[in-house]
Order: sequence, then structure tokens, then C-alpha cells
Amino acid sequence: MDVKKAVVLLSGGLDSATVLAAAVRDGFACYALSFDYGQRHRCELDCAAAVAAAAGARHLVMKIDLQAWGGSALTDDRIAVPDAADSHGVPITYVPARNLVFLSFATAWAEVLKARDIFIGVNSVDYSGYPDCRPAFIRAFSEAARLGTCAVDENWQFEIHAPLQNMSKAEIIRTGVELGVNYSLTTSCYRPDAEGRSCGSCASCQLRRDGFAAAGIPDPTRYTGSR
Amino acid sequence: MDVKKAVVLLSGGLDSATVLAAAVRDGFACYALSFDYGQRHRCELDCAAAVAAAAGARHLVMKIDLQAWGGSALTDDRIAVPDAADSHGVPITYVPARNLVFLSFATAWAEVLKARDIFIGVNSVDYSGYPDCRPAFIRAFSEAARLGTCAVDENWQFEIHAPLQNMSKAEIIRTGVELGVNYSLTTSCYRPDAEGRSCGSCASCQLRRDGFAAAGIPDPTRYTGSR
Repeated sequence: MDVKKAVVLLSGGLDSATVLAAAVRDGFACYALSFDYGQRHRCELDCAAAVAAAAGARHLVMKIDLQAWGGSALTDDRIAVPDAADSHGVPITYVPARNLVFLSFATAWAEVLKARDIFIGVNSVDYSGYPDCRPAFIRAFSEAARLGTCAVDENWQFEIHAPLQNMSKAEIIRTGVELGVNYSLTTSCYRPDAEGRSCGSCASCQLRRDGFAAAGIPDPTRYTGSR
Repeated sequence: MDVKKAVVLLSGGLDSATVLAAAVRDGFACYALSFDYGQRHRCELDCAAAVAAAAGARHLVMKIDLQAWGGSALTDDRIAVPDAADSHGVPITYVPARNLVFLSFATAWAEVLKARDIFIGVNSVDYSGYPDCRPAFIRAFSEAARLGTCAVDENWQFEIHAPLQNMSKAEIIRTGVELGVNYSLTTSCYRPDAEGRSCGSCASCQLRRDGFAAAGIPDPTRYTGSR
């Protein structure tokens, strides 16, 4: 029997590590794709490599330069990452069209691999209000991917899997623990220190901390100031 | 009055040079975007720079590595570019999901610039049968771009302009000449020689040659073997 291939977007964070584990559980041969996009928290790429290796997935890091136009606290060093409490509306950590760009590359790789399945860890419960995490966007992208590739000519259609879409952070963590995800390999912080330790107070850290607390699972994250 | 900004995808070829000229004519301040994506015919980037300069547009070259997965004669040196007559169906020069990737970057830049307008030189008359040149793809992408950005929250919508969509190559060339496009700055060949001269026989050269002939306009292209 042919093993089905899937492309899995992998950031090095908690959500995408869980998605990768779910794709492996579902029997896919996984091709994990990360981006060196000029992000402030570039240390997440080391985490992504460790997570991919632990899951037995192939891993590719695509280098792109979203600093060329900036527009986000994550890609422009002149814009500070705020504490969670200071974020309102779509936060300044939103990277313009990031998931659109990431999914487009995932689609390209999937087409070359003849893989129908693409996994992404978007979530619209415990998330930061980014527009490119919404189900409507994922559906619209799926249609664009179908029409913008040869897929349609071969009577197939890409399926964009977003298995975390409606889960709380605590549910995601419980699911990952059941799947054997080692969350100490992952990082979520937007402004880690030079040693990769998390700040504990940016919006992403706060969602993560609250998630572990709500799940009743010890938080393995190394926070600044912790040993 | 505020000048409206537009992002224009610019390959260095005939079509996108015409689109850029049309956008300038329509009063847009143009931000031209090219990609160093591992293409065999990388010399097109010098043409793109010359075309952008001639049009008075800002120009940015984004480096991405589509050779990482190949899958096309344009991005994998092991796959030869065939002569036009030997191409059937979707040709091997099709680069998987290329316009999806290019438009996603254009959308990201447009969002940062607060530009609503994106121009692309796709065409579905005299073209090579690539799926990502079809009107249905452009429409679907437009919807994905709207939903995957903050645009929707600011009560705006990206408009993807594809002014060449229904024009023959001869009509494109006549339009460009009226707009003052200097086609000697452009290149179309998929397998130019080391000096940037065109082969004259790949599918892209053939479309170009036939277009100039049908338009009754002298072809300024430097072909291999010509002086």
C-alpha cells in the first residue's frame, strides 16, 4: 500500500507540533515545512528541527525575507512586542498575509510531492485574533490552491487540514500529551532571550501558560528568570 | 490628493512590462515585485530591473528557493526545456503553484503599503496552458487574500488586476507600444544563452515571435545566432 504523503506547516510552537503528531498518527508520511522569514524569535527554527526529528518527519526550512517590508513587531526590530495586556484588536505581532504565504509554499511542495494533504495549526479559540487563522480563510485558500495548480486536471483536490481549529489551548495540550508530544522541545515566545528562554508575558506566552494551567499539565517551558 | 499605490508582479517579460505601463498610466505609484526563485532564466531579473527603472517604479527582488523541491524544467536543471512543438497538456515548464506564491507575497507587501491594488500579467489566450493563469484562479485568490489579511477589518478589499487576461499576444504588444514600453528591455526565453540571447524555439519564444509578427511590429528580441 502506498503511504500517503502530507505537508505539515511547522513553526516550532506548541500548536504545529501537535498537528504534526496528529498527522503521523493518521498514517501520513510527513514533510514538515518551516520558514526562516526574518522573525524575531528565530530560535523557534531549532525547536522545529527537534520536533520534526522526534516525529520522524522530513524537514525543510524555506528562507524568505518578510523583513523586506516589515509591518509587524515580529519582522521589524523597530516595533516592540507588547505584553499581552497591551494588545487590542488585531495585535501588532500580526505578520501581514503570513499564513497565505506559508500555505502557498506548502501547496507548491505538495503538488511536487503529489500529496493531497496539507496540515496547519491554526486555531480560532485561544488565539491572537489574526485574520489568517479563520475557517473562512482556510476554505477560501483551499479553493484558490485547487484552481491555481494542476491538481484540478488530475481530478484531485488539496485538503487543508486544520484539526485544532475549534479546540481550546488546554484541549490541544491534552491531545498532544496523549500523542506523545514532548512540549519541552517547543517554544511559543515572541521575544525570547538570547538563550531561547521565554518572556512569560507576551500574548503568545500567556496563551501557552494559561493552556497548561487549564489542562492541569505541568508547563515545561523555560521562562526567563527560571533555572 | 493621495497617490494610490499598487503592487505589480514583474518578471522581466513582455506581459508584465505591459501591465506595469498600464498601471502607471492609470495613475498608480507602482511597487514592482520580482522573484529570484531559482529559475533557469535568471537573466530576466536584470530585465525586470531595467523595465522598472524605465517606468519609474520602485523595485524589489524577493529571493525564494523553488529549486528546493523542483518539479519544473524551469527550476530543476535535470529537466530540459522542450521546443514549443514538443509540449502537450500542461507543459513541463509549469512551476507548481508559482502564481499562488507570487500573489501571496504581493498581497503581503500590499497590506503593509496599505495598497488595495495588485497587478499581474496573466493571460488565457496566447499562453502555455498553466492553470494559475485562469480567471477562476485569480477570483479565488482574491477572496483568499481578502479573508487572510486585515483588509476585511478595514472595510476594504484587494483588487487583483489582470488587464491582459483576454488579450491576444498581438493586442498586448500593440497596447504596450502605445504606452511606450521598450520591449527590447524585456526577455521571454526559458533557455537563454550565457549572454541573455533568446533561443527562439521554446514555447515562450514562439508565443513572443508569433505575437510580434501578428501585431506587425518589428521584434526587438536578440535571438541566438542573431547579431
